[in-house]
Amino acid sequence: LAEVAGWRLSGNHIWRLVDFEDFNEAMRFVNRVARLAESANHHPDILIQYSKVKLSLTTHDEGGLTTKDFSLARRINRIAE
Amino acid sequence: LAEVAGWRLSGNHIWRLVDFEDFNEAMRFVNRVARLAESANHHPDILIQYSKVKLSLTTHDEGGLTTKDFSLARRINRIAE
Repeated sequence: LAEVAGWRLSGNHIWRLVDFEDFNEAMRFVNRVARLAESANHHPDILIQYSKVKLSLTTHDEGGLTTKDFSLARRINRIAE
Repeated sequence: LAEVAGWRLSGNHIWRLVDFEDFNEAMRFVNRVARLAESANHHPDILIQYSKVKLSLTTHDEGGLTTKDFSLARRINRIAE
């Protein structure tokens, strides 16, 4: 997906995998994503597998991707760096 | 699975779904699970879908379920109530 670095398109959602040093670092990232999600009132699905975090975004109310998803993906990218 | 209330067996792991009022409550639960996981040095896969949290446990080093999984599942049950 050219629009947002690191994210891939799959069906009606975009997803990104981020790998950390360990579980605690992964959890710190997840909590930062959670704060972004609450402030945007838009919530990715979040899968935590030890040091790996998979995020998935779609707009359920619209049945597909919207600017909400790409906007939040960009904000998540800033804290994933 | 008779041994741990609320958990089901699927292949080589056990899993439980817990539903909360909203995303913030779900995140509070996930952070409590994370602290248990760190103290046990045993980490469930954690999937957060807004107010729903799915936990999945197996012992990767042993290629299947061990007492570590059932022990952590019981401790998680205490904080899920």
